[in-house]
Amino acid sequence: MKHRALMLILDGVGDRPLSEFGGLTPLEAAYKPNLDRLATEGITGLMDPISAGIRVGTDVGHLALFGFNPLRVYWGRGPIEAEGVYFSLKEGDVSFRANFATVDSEGVIVSRRAGRIREGTAELAAALDGMRLSDGTLAFFKPATEHRAVLVLRGSRLSPLVTDSDPGPGGEGMKPLPIKSRITGAPAAERTAALASEFVKRAHEILVSHPVNIARKKNSLLPANYVLLRSAGVRKYVKPLTERFKIRGACVVAESTIIGIARMAGFDIMTSPRFTANLDTDVEGKMEMALAALKEYDLVVVHYKGTDIASHDGKSEEKKRFIEQVDKALGWLLNQTRNLKLYIAVTSDHSTPCGLREHSADPVPVILWGQDVLKDDVLTYGERSCAKGGLRRISANGFLLTLLDYLNVTHRFGS
Amino acid sequence: MKHRALMLILDGVGDRPLSEFGGLTPLEAAYKPNLDRLATEGITGLMDPISAGIRVGTDVGHLALFGFNPLRVYWGRGPIEAEGVYFSLKEGDVSFRANFATVDSEGVIVSRRAGRIREGTAELAAALDGMRLSDGTLAFFKPATEHRAVLVLRGSRLSPLVTDSDPGPGGEGMKPLPIKSRITGAPAAERTAALASEFVKRAHEILVSHPVNIARKKNSLLPANYVLLRSAGVRKYVKPLTERFKIRGACVVAESTIIGIARMAGFDIMTSPRFTANLDTDVEGKMEMALAALKEYDLVVVHYKGTDIASHDGKSEEKKRFIEQVDKALGWLLNQTRNLKLYIAVTSDHSTPCGLREHSADPVPVILWGQDVLKDDVLTYGERSCAKGGLRRISANGFLLTLLDYLNVTHRFGS
Repeated sequence: MKHRALMLILDGVGDRPLSEFGGLTPLEAAYKPNLDRLATEGITGLMDPISAGIRVGTDVGHLALFGFNPLRVYWGRGPIEAEGVYFSLKEGDVSFRANFATVDSEGVIVSRRAGRIREGTAELAAALDGMRLSDGTLAFFKPATEHRAVLVLRGSRLSPLVTDSDPGPGGEGMKPLPIKSRITGAPAAERTAALASEFVKRAHEILVSHPVNIARKKNSLLPANYVLLRSAGVRKYVKPLTERFKIRGACVVAESTIIGIARMAGFDIMTSPRFTANLDTDVEGKMEMALAALKEYDLVVVHYKGTDIASHDGKSEEKKRFIEQVDKALGWLLNQTRNLKLYIAVTSDHSTPCGLREHSADPVPVILWGQDVLKDDVLTYGERSCAKGGLRRISANGFLLTLLDYLNVTHRFGS
Repeated sequence: MKHRALMLILDGVGDRPLSEFGGLTPLEAAYKPNLDRLATEGITGLMDPISAGIRVGTDVGHLALFGFNPLRVYWGRGPIEAEGVYFSLKEGDVSFRANFATVDSEGVIVSRRAGRIREGTAELAAALDGMRLSDGTLAFFKPATEHRAVLVLRGSRLSPLVTDSDPGPGGEGMKPLPIKSRITGAPAAERTAALASEFVKRAHEILVSHPVNIARKKNSLLPANYVLLRSAGVRKYVKPLTERFKIRGACVVAESTIIGIARMAGFDIMTSPRFTANLDTDVEGKMEMALAALKEYDLVVVHYKGTDIASHDGKSEEKKRFIEQVDKALGWLLNQTRNLKLYIAVTSDHSTPCGLREHSADPVPVILWGQDVLKDDVLTYGERSCAKGGLRRISANGFLLTLLDYLNVTHRFGS
C-alpha cells in the first residue's frame, strides 16, 4: 500500500506570550491532545516561510508551502485571485483584484466596498464580463466573495506594470486614482493602463443603470456603480508541484486566495458551502472531506483560516478555542486512518500574534509524523516546544520537500 | 606546530528508525565508543548536503563536501569519472561514462556490461585510445573498474548537450540508442553527437576482431565488442579547494567517483589495491594511510563506502558492523595522534536509510572535534543526538568552511 500524506495548515497559528494565558501563547494554552500526540510521536521543528525575519502575506506563505519559491516567482495577487475564482489564466493575461464600490455623481468614492454588497454581484459581474475593449483586448470580469471580483485582460502586448485605482483604506471621500504605467517609456504598460481605464469607465456607465443597482437605491442601499482595481499581475509559468513530483494533490479549503494557489500548484479543490474562511467554518466537515480525499490522492492539504482571523481581531481566547476544535476533528481523523500508511505534516503559512493583530516574521512550529520519521523527544505542539525539535529550523520549501521525500517522490540531484 | 585536519566520510551513514534495532538507527545501535568520544568532546549538528529536503547523489554530496556549490557547477558524471581514472581534463573536453557491452550480429544489446568483464579491459581500451576522428578531434579512451571506462573527446567547438546511447537498466534486447543533440539548431552539439557516433562505430569494428574478444569467445565468455556512452559533460573551471585556501589536501579513497571529485578539488589521492569501495575494504589500512598523510598534508579526507553499500542492500546489521569496524580503526588513529594538533570532522555525503534502500534527503549527523571547538553536551554520534548539537543544522559547504575556519585558513569577507 502506497504512502499518503496529509498537510494540515493552521493559518497564522504562531503567536507570542500573552498575559491572559500566564505568558503562554494561544497554542501553548490550548487543550490539544491530538496535536500533542503527533508532536510526541513525530519529529518537530521551526519553519520560516522564507527565511528568518521575513514577514510574509498569506499568499507568499502558501506559495512557499505549495512548492513555489516566492523570491523568484511572486506574481502578485491579481493572478492568484483569478485562479481562486476558477478562472484558468493563459500566458500573458493581466489580472487585477477588483472591488465593487460606490461613487457619487461627482465621482468621489462613497464606499470602497459598495456597503459590503453581498447580493447581486453575480449579475453585476455578468454585465461586465466579456467586454471587448477598443483595440480588441478582451476583458473578463468574474465575481468573488462579497464585494470582491477579478478583472482579467486578455490581448497582445499587455503589461502588469500599472498602478492601482483603489486608493486603499481611508479612500472614501477621494476620487479613484488614475491608472498609470509604473515605469516611463513602457508602451505596453501605457496601453494596459489605458485599457484598464477604458474598462473602468465603461463599467461605470453599465453599472449605474443596472437593475440590481436601481433596486439597491430603492432599498436605500449603496449602489455598486464603480469598479476599483489593484494588484495587477501576470502569472509566470512554473511547473505545478503535482507535475514536478508526479503526485495527485487535493486541497480542502474555502478561501479563494488559497484556492488560487492550490490550483496553480496543480491541486484539485474540494470545498463546500459549509466551509468558510472564518471561525464559523465546518471544522469537522473539512476533516471528513480530507479523509475521503486520502483514498484518491497522494497529498491532501486541509486549510483552516480561523486561527488567523481571530489573531487579526486580537481575540486570543477564540484562537485557542478554534485550535481546540481543529484538534478534536484531527482526533477523529486519526481514529479513521489507523490502517492507512499516512504521513501528517502540521504547519502554518506564518505567525499572527494576537497582540500585534498582524502577521509577524516569527517562525511557525511544525510537526512531521509518520511511521519512520526520526521521532524526537518533543512532547507538545507549540512555538517553544518545537524549537527543540529534531528538524531544527527549516524553510517552508524545505519542509514541503522533506514531506515529499518521506513519500519517496522526490528526485535525486546527481547520481 | 601547525594544526591538521582529518575529515572522516561515512558514505550514506544516516538512517531511519528500524524495528530490528528497537526503533534505533544502525548508527544509534552500533557500539562506537570512539565516535561517541568525539561527539562528547566536540561540537555536533545536522548537515544538509545542499538544503533541507534535497535528495542528492554521491557525486553531488561529495562535490559539496569538497567545497564546490553543486547548484552552480554541477557538470555531471562524465568529467568526474574521467578525473576518477586520473585523466587530467583540459578546457572544452567532453567526457562520457562508457561501458564495455556485448551486441549480437544484428547490433542488439546482449549484455550492457559484457558479462561484467573484469580481465583484458586495459588492452581493449588501449586499442581505442588516441583515435583520431574524421575532423581531427582526438578520442581518449581509458579503462575504469570492471566493465567501466571513460571516453574524452578533445577538439574544437564540442558540446556536452548530447544524448546517451546506453538505454540504461533493462536495455538488453534493445539496440543502442542513436546519440543526438539535446537541443535543436545547436551545431556544436550536432557535431559532437556525430563524432561520438563515429567513435562508437569504429570502436565496434576494432573490438570485434580484438584478440581479447576472440579469446573470450573461445572460452564462451561474452565479447566486449561495443561501447555504450552516457552522461556527457564538460568540466567548468572552478578554483580547487586547495588553491582557494592554500592548503595541502590528501584523500584516502577507493571509489573512482570520489577520486575524480577529490582530484578536481586539488587533493592528492592515496589508495591501495586493498581498498575497495565496499564492505570488504581494508578499514584499518585506510586509517594507517590517513595517519601517514597527516604528517604531510593540512587536510586529509578518509572515505568509507561500506555504510552506503550495506544500506542499498537493506542490510542494517552489516551497516552497523561496518560502523563498528570504522570506529575501532578510528580508536587506533586517536591513540596515534595524541601529540598532533588535530581537528577531526565526521560527516557523510547523504543519508541512505536501509528501509528505503535508496538515498534520502534526511540530514546527516556531523561532529567537529578539536581542542578549541565549542563543545556541546551531546554524548553520542547519532541522527537524533546530533540534532541537539551546537552546530544546529548547516549545509555541507558550511560544515567544510567551518572546519577550514578552525584550521585558520579561511579568508575574511570584508575588512
